[in-house]
Amino acid sequence: MTGTTLPAADPAATQAWCRAFLAQLVSCGVQHVAVSPGSRSTPMTVAADRTHGLELTMHLDERSGGFFALGLARASRRPVAVLCTSGTAAANYLPAVVEAFHSGVPLLVLTTDRPPELRGIGAPQAIDQVELYGTHTRWTANVGTAGIETPGEAASLAHQAVVRATRPAPGPVHVNIGLREPLEPPTQDPPPIGLLPMPPEHATVEPGPLLELLETERGLLVAGPMDPDARGVETISELSRRIGWPILADPASGLRRGPHTSHAPVVAGGDHLLRSSWADDHRPDVVIQLGAMPTSKGYRLWLDRVGTDRLVAVDHLGRFPDAAQRVTDRVAAEPGLLASELLDRLGGAERSGPWATAWTDADSTAMSTVLAIADDGPFDEPGVVTAMHRCLTAGANLVVANSMPIRDLDAFLPTDERPLRIIANRGANGIDGMASTALGVAAGSSEPTVLFTGDLALLHDLGGLLATRRLGLDLTVVLVDNDGGGIFSFLPIADSDHVNHHRLFHTPHGLDLGGIAALAGGRLHEPTDATSLEEVLGSALSSSGLDLVRVTVDAVTNVGLHRAAASAVQCALVDDGG
Amino acid sequence: MTGTTLPAADPAATQAWCRAFLAQLVSCGVQHVAVSPGSRSTPMTVAADRTHGLELTMHLDERSGGFFALGLARASRRPVAVLCTSGTAAANYLPAVVEAFHSGVPLLVLTTDRPPELRGIGAPQAIDQVELYGTHTRWTANVGTAGIETPGEAASLAHQAVVRATRPAPGPVHVNIGLREPLEPPTQDPPPIGLLPMPPEHATVEPGPLLELLETERGLLVAGPMDPDARGVETISELSRRIGWPILADPASGLRRGPHTSHAPVVAGGDHLLRSSWADDHRPDVVIQLGAMPTSKGYRLWLDRVGTDRLVAVDHLGRFPDAAQRVTDRVAAEPGLLASELLDRLGGAERSGPWATAWTDADSTAMSTVLAIADDGPFDEPGVVTAMHRCLTAGANLVVANSMPIRDLDAFLPTDERPLRIIANRGANGIDGMASTALGVAAGSSEPTVLFTGDLALLHDLGGLLATRRLGLDLTVVLVDNDGGGIFSFLPIADSDHVNHHRLFHTPHGLDLGGIAALAGGRLHEPTDATSLEEVLGSALSSSGLDLVRVTVDAVTNVGLHRAAASAVQCALVDDGG
Repeated sequence: MTGTTLPAADPAATQAWCRAFLAQLVSCGVQHVAVSPGSRSTPMTVAADRTHGLELTMHLDERSGGFFALGLARASRRPVAVLCTSGTAAANYLPAVVEAFHSGVPLLVLTTDRPPELRGIGAPQAIDQVELYGTHTRWTANVGTAGIETPGEAASLAHQAVVRATRPAPGPVHVNIGLREPLEPPTQDPPPIGLLPMPPEHATVEPGPLLELLETERGLLVAGPMDPDARGVETISELSRRIGWPILADPASGLRRGPHTSHAPVVAGGDHLLRSSWADDHRPDVVIQLGAMPTSKGYRLWLDRVGTDRLVAVDHLGRFPDAAQRVTDRVAAEPGLLASELLDRLGGAERSGPWATAWTDADSTAMSTVLAIADDGPFDEPGVVTAMHRCLTAGANLVVANSMPIRDLDAFLPTDERPLRIIANRGANGIDGMASTALGVAAGSSEPTVLFTGDLALLHDLGGLLATRRLGLDLTVVLVDNDGGGIFSFLPIADSDHVNHHRLFHTPHGLDLGGIAALAGGRLHEPTDATSLEEVLGSALSSSGLDLVRVTVDAVTNVGLHRAAASAVQCALVDDGG
Repeated sequence: MTGTTLPAADPAATQAWCRAFLAQLVSCGVQHVAVSPGSRSTPMTVAADRTHGLELTMHLDERSGGFFALGLARASRRPVAVLCTSGTAAANYLPAVVEAFHSGVPLLVLTTDRPPELRGIGAPQAIDQVELYGTHTRWTANVGTAGIETPGEAASLAHQAVVRATRPAPGPVHVNIGLREPLEPPTQDPPPIGLLPMPPEHATVEPGPLLELLETERGLLVAGPMDPDARGVETISELSRRIGWPILADPASGLRRGPHTSHAPVVAGGDHLLRSSWADDHRPDVVIQLGAMPTSKGYRLWLDRVGTDRLVAVDHLGRFPDAAQRVTDRVAAEPGLLASELLDRLGGAERSGPWATAWTDADSTAMSTVLAIADDGPFDEPGVVTAMHRCLTAGANLVVANSMPIRDLDAFLPTDERPLRIIANRGANGIDGMASTALGVAAGSSEPTVLFTGDLALLHDLGGLLATRRLGLDLTVVLVDNDGGGIFSFLPIADSDHVNHHRLFHTPHGLDLGGIAALAGGRLHEPTDATSLEEVLGSALSSSGLDLVRVTVDAVTNVGLHRAAASAVQCALVDDGG
């Protein structure tokens, strides 16, 4: 008996398909593909390398490649593609896909696969890749065998993928592409084909129902994690100024720092204010919450405690975060766009009254109180935040890890006229992929990039960090190293005598992380006070390659400083009011 | 307006549920849980720490934790649990889950989650975890809120999970467990409950239809990657001896080395033989293929070229691998069990004839030819394999990375009477998670463990390797470092002038990987010839902690040695036959 002969690809047709697909991505605004090495992906990898206008970086670990693309997409405000071979390679994208889904980042996840005749029959590196990312993509398509369909159909699919990754709400899409052997492409370029234009976008927002609410005097804007561009920051802050509602600005909202802070009532110390009894006496009638759920746990507790008549969640990603189960209205709109529409409809009158002043005055009191604690107390995470704040020049990028660093920023980063692009993965709030996210941000920006991270998050993506030199990128890592997970010291369980908290929760790694700098070919700095940290940062921000700035901190000290800040703010506000 | 108040847990009821669940796992044979730190998982983590008979290790990266559990489950031949918090933490398990699914390893994946009232409303770290691993589990269950159901129901669920993870075929199962605040457990132990016994297993195999095939004189057993225990190895090799069919033994089949090789016709050089014209003249009438698809590409090409009348795939995982599309019969049976049944039914007669001798003689010729090339040629991967072979004492564990190392073993590892447990992740053939897999094997075995890996695979799981000292484990890593992916030098595209092969495929990392030893607190060795490698291995195998044995190799040299081996075998066999 003779077995069936496997169908062979026409390499020219395969390559024409791949080139058309990728040229169409470029035509739709994609400029970068983060590729991981592999054999099955050969036709796509070579096509990507040959596609004009498409930059390509290589990533040894697909998990890191996924997060790199995520950071690059956020920094560049463009969709970014990732590309890998078949098998568990594709499975490693899941964490970045989940984060992109929840934070609304347009990722084009291109996985390559065996052709249909080799699926499900035990061929090497063949797993079920169709719909591999489950409910965590905005759209998914499966191509049986690239090259059987025409280049025109490839372009149409690529066009659809970018449209679905960006409209009406951005997020990840997955295209699984079967490729048949032989995989080696011909040397000749395929003939060019006609490409489809991105359709014009007509995003419309119906602001009518909100206009009436804006007449409320006692209102708050709560800006959660989101990605407004400069115009969005301008319109949101201008709206706040016009209606006399303070903005409680999450560190990852884009509103904490920037020129708008000089004329709009931006509140940096929201977490402190809302934890104090002062906020019980300043119950708003309306809260408009923008973007993702704010980092501040104080906000959620305060909503639970004090409530509000109307809580409007404005979110174009369909999340409408409602962790306190108080949301009364859901508005599907990009916050900056909504603010712009509202501004257009508002009359010329401005409202300035005691309400906004009460919040900004209280914020001044709170922030001067906590900054004194950060600067005068033992040098720990709060002092690191304020030193970074002083050094980070206009336009810099600050990528912040989850767990404690984002909370340290929330508590201790004041407003400032110098803009600072703060990027955190607040979609799913994982500690994974941070170094790669930061490298992606560095690749997508011409300004200096700093990663502020704890030791566990850095270790989680150590392989990603080691790519810094190979990728030719400049990154400063500010590592607050307490040999474990400091956030767990904030949990009630930290005080229990009956639980091995140190082993089960703090989980010390016991490594001398300074060695990472040598392994990565970077420079190690170990400042021991705020002054030396500022000196180090000053030079690191303008130097090339990797600077690892390791500050040894102590989890218990940091708990003490955060709690001292909360108590001091409470006292200061009561004194002010009394 | 006042919002709804979130329901609160009864911590004692939650803890009773968790303790019952975990006690039942222990009662069903689970002895280990690989935990990653987190807050939502607190009740389960504390319960695991308090459960008698359950060992607990901490893993900073869930991806590494998953692969550690995979290695431990394989080494110990027991189901192993992993446990993590909510969010992307759970997503990081996917690569290990996929591998466990395809290689049939019983993993109990326990993810913790928000309770139902906090799902889908933008609560922090809340993603859609229900059926997160898609088609890659054998079974999945979702618990809304642990503690609402009784401890008895928890035990029943745990019992079901272990049964589904082990019978009828082993593989991963997923239990997603909602946990409600407060998460801190009480200090008191809950009252003990009655636990369910594992039901007796009545795995039966109907060997009748195969008995007739075994009367064929010209037959082959092809042992692919699988996990036979000592008895399975014995029965398979005894069957081979009795029926006079040679066994082509994949390095990951368990049959390449061991006492059975002194009396059964075990062929080590199958890849070489099947690539030569000698094999065209030795077409078998029947092939019985056991386990997963063999590593040898020569096997697939030979099936394509020469074929066989009957190709029987014996596999208890339902894969029936058929990459050459030649399989005529599928037998759902664990190979060792099937061999045992067949032996019982065979008459006492043994067959010994020229067929088996032809194969073993050819194998002797092939292996002496390739070993001469490995030992006399430049010191590269083949010489590393033969040096390891000489040093690895009876019972040692050799964990082998995919890509080139498993192929190096396939080509250059001879048979030997000293048993060697070779473990490779040949389910999905990824290069991810190798260091953690090896650490899991080390944790599950009292014999020394060696990881044989290339540089890309080691970098892919560098964070996993750094846990060696913290976990108190002993591991020797033999790193063949060619600064990139050597396997790509075997592809036709390596010879193309029109492709940037070095950047797109070889992907040099440019790192001095010797630095890993210092970072991990281990010892670095850099032998430059086989003699010094053997000396190093001799001491490393008996020392504690991490030994990193780095051998600088060259991808092009290795291609040359593999090709020289193939040519030399062809010549040697033609000479012998002529």
